[in-house]
Amino acid sequence: MNTIESSGHNIYFDTKLAPLAEIIEKGTYSNIFVFADRNTAEACLPVFREMLDDFSGFDLIETDPGEENKNIDFCIGIWKTLLDFEADRKCLMINLGGGVITDMGGFVASTYKRGIDFINIPTTLLSQVDASVGGKTGIDIDNVKNMVGTFTLPQAVFIEAEFLKTVPKREMLSGFAEMIKHGLIADEKYYQELKAANYQNITTAAIHRSVEIKNEVVTEDPLEKGKRKILNFGHTIGHAVESYSLSKDKKPLTHGEAIAIGMICEAWLSHKNSTLSAEELAEIRAYISSVYPAYKIKEKSFDKLSALMQSDKKNEHGNILFSLLESIGKCTWNCRVAESDIRESMEYYNLTYVK
Amino acid sequence: MNTIESSGHNIYFDTKLAPLAEIIEKGTYSNIFVFADRNTAEACLPVFREMLDDFSGFDLIETDPGEENKNIDFCIGIWKTLLDFEADRKCLMINLGGGVITDMGGFVASTYKRGIDFINIPTTLLSQVDASVGGKTGIDIDNVKNMVGTFTLPQAVFIEAEFLKTVPKREMLSGFAEMIKHGLIADEKYYQELKAANYQNITTAAIHRSVEIKNEVVTEDPLEKGKRKILNFGHTIGHAVESYSLSKDKKPLTHGEAIAIGMICEAWLSHKNSTLSAEELAEIRAYISSVYPAYKIKEKSFDKLSALMQSDKKNEHGNILFSLLESIGKCTWNCRVAESDIRESMEYYNLTYVK
Ligand SMILES: NC(=O)c1ccc[n+]([C@@H]2O[C@H](COP(=O)([O-])OP(=O)(O)OC[C@H]3O[C@@H](n4cnc5c(N)ncnc54)[C@H](O)[C@@H]3O)[C@@H](O)[C@H]2O)c1
Ligand SMILES: NC(=O)c1ccc[n+]([C@@H]2O[C@H](COP(=O)([O-])OP(=O)(O)OC[C@H]3O[C@@H](n4cnc5c(N)ncnc54)[C@H](O)[C@@H]3O)[C@@H](O)[C@H]2O)c1
Ligand SMILES: [Zn+2]
Ligand SMILES: [Zn+2]
Repeated sequence: MNTIESSGHNIYFDTKLAPLAEIIEKGTYSNIFVFADRNTAEACLPVFREMLDDFSGFDLIETDPGEENKNIDFCIGIWKTLLDFEADRKCLMINLGGGVITDMGGFVASTYKRGIDFINIPTTLLSQVDASVGGKTGIDIDNVKNMVGTFTLPQAVFIEAEFLKTVPKREMLSGFAEMIKHGLIADEKYYQELKAANYQNITTAAIHRSVEIKNEVVTEDPLEKGKRKILNFGHTIGHAVESYSLSKDKKPLTHGEAIAIGMICEAWLSHKNSTLSAEELAEIRAYISSVYPAYKIKEKSFDKLSALMQSDKKNEHGNILFSLLESIGKCTWNCRVAESDIRESMEYYNLTYVK
Repeated sequence: MNTIESSGHNIYFDTKLAPLAEIIEKGTYSNIFVFADRNTAEACLPVFREMLDDFSGFDLIETDPGEENKNIDFCIGIWKTLLDFEADRKCLMINLGGGVITDMGGFVASTYKRGIDFINIPTTLLSQVDASVGGKTGIDIDNVKNMVGTFTLPQAVFIEAEFLKTVPKREMLSGFAEMIKHGLIADEKYYQELKAANYQNITTAAIHRSVEIKNEVVTEDPLEKGKRKILNFGHTIGHAVESYSLSKDKKPLTHGEAIAIGMICEAWLSHKNSTLSAEELAEIRAYISSVYPAYKIKEKSFDKLSALMQSDKKNEHGNILFSLLESIGKCTWNCRVAESDIRESMEYYNLTYVK
């Protein structure tokens, strides 16, 4: 599979980490740290070591898994661990895990001693097609997502299908939502291909195409001044629903499940406020609702959801701005939408989703 | 006084903040925050407001003064305050204070929502000639200085002699050490001029020259891969002495006082390990010791000081690397020095300093 060149670094596909072995062999790093969570230390670290010929010349930094641990307290712990290891500026951090690990590991690395090198080895579908591409690092503050972070690029990204074998089904489905999004915002043909695919058996070719789409967008607009915002399709409402679900539901939605909901709502907004046709809207709704489990957005949560959207960091000057589809495969951004439309789009989701 | 162009931003001198008034008038920022400590809120904020025609369209974020508060807990507090104000990515942070405020405010701004704009208005001599130039932001972790930070440039820097009027004498002397350093590493003529000057009555012309020197160095090597290290002259031993004094002395050394000590030690190392002549060494010692109060580096602290130098973030692969003078006005970097020489240089300081 072709390597993708991103800004100043490469994204490798199914190389069995061969280029990483070369980097390590060069020996220019004073120390190598592998950052993982308990699950990836168990499921992925053995594979990692095997790919690198039983490499053991690293120290493991392990954290508890889950979004609730993507916080500043864990960062402080990691900074102090690096200090305890007397890690200098020439050390390397390898982030081995899902988006929580690559986001938080990237943030810690980009700020420790004002920046050390790091490499991302994303091990979930979501992190392979999304989190590990584009240079965004971040952590949550007071449960508000990614409130603190940097734009910092890794030295390399390694995408290995091998790691996906142990990813739970629900996590696969979560990452698959971002792939659907990539199709919807940038490539109708790819979207149609995904419809024919099975999310439990994703090919590296499909991942490659998703990474390609995301990479093109972020390379054109690294600091999210404009076009990069199309990647937020489904995320304005989706994020709010996700936060709400996290704080209220016994079994909260995954990110992808929330984004699936957000994409249906925002497809409705695209029809109402942009040029997405009624047929395309119906087709998006039908497909997404055939893949993702049903969910009810409680009417009494609408106010809280609006407040959450208000405080979303993508806003400017207090306006809630949406990225909307002009058609399947084409997306525009910075669209203002009436508050009543936002509510209606959620009602639409609730009405039409229940099969 | 001429404006200095730095990477992508300007450093203004004695403009009475006129360009800032223009930036504010443009009104492109959604919110303006002024970040200050208790002392600068009292001594500098009235001057700031007066210069801006009684401007009041900002929210004040105030912290406790002092290096001990340049820590992650205060950063978390500021991030949360920004969240409470619903600050979006288009807000502006104005850091009004000494190096603690510009360092910590810069770090908070460079990471809040992955980076908002900030402007530095340094109000101590040290921060005018040093901390506010070069894009280093940072905070301390476990009392280890600047262990976490970023390289991020402000939108502008405003240097106003007016603010220095309320700076305590000892703080003026502290900043003056960095000016001496600039002369020693880059400009013999400037060094001679400083010798004729009075640190309590620093001219903007002298500050301008210091900023010019620092700016040239950091523009050439923004990420401190090489030449920028000459700015560390006096700082390897100086930082260790400063940390030690902070933890042990009843009335700890200021940064500049510690750097003055460090410069005498490292001038000795420059004579021993580089080409600084015996006459130049004697002249540096004589001048610095005529300006700075005497101090004794306790023999029993040498081991601890070595350990502190070891853990200094400027090291690579466990070697303590020094920036050494080749002559007055010329500096080289990445010099390895025997541990015994480091000790001897401190003995030299102790022996010769006491008048
Ligand atoms: N930086 C970006 O541009 C960006 C983009 C999208 C998402 N994100 C972030 O990514 C995070 C979500 O990523 P995620 O879904 O990968 O979450 P995650 O890292 O929490 O991984 C999900 C779960 O799967 C486990 N896991 C990971 N790899 C595994 C494997 N190979 N086998 C078995 N279990 C494995 C993890 O331990 C975790 O329990 C969020 O914090 C989100 O903000 C960032
Ligand atoms: N980023 C860099 O490149 C860089 C370079 C050098 C130093 N620094 C950092 O700068 C810090 C030291 O800077 P500093 O010496 O300015 O310390 P500081 O900010 O603590 O200021 C010293 C004292 O003077 C007070 N003060 C500030 N301005 C005043 C004024 N105009 N009138 C009256 N009182 C005033 C402050 O409240 C404080 O009590 C350190 O943390 C150091 O690490 C950073
Ligand atoms: Zn997403
Ligand atoms: Zn200094």
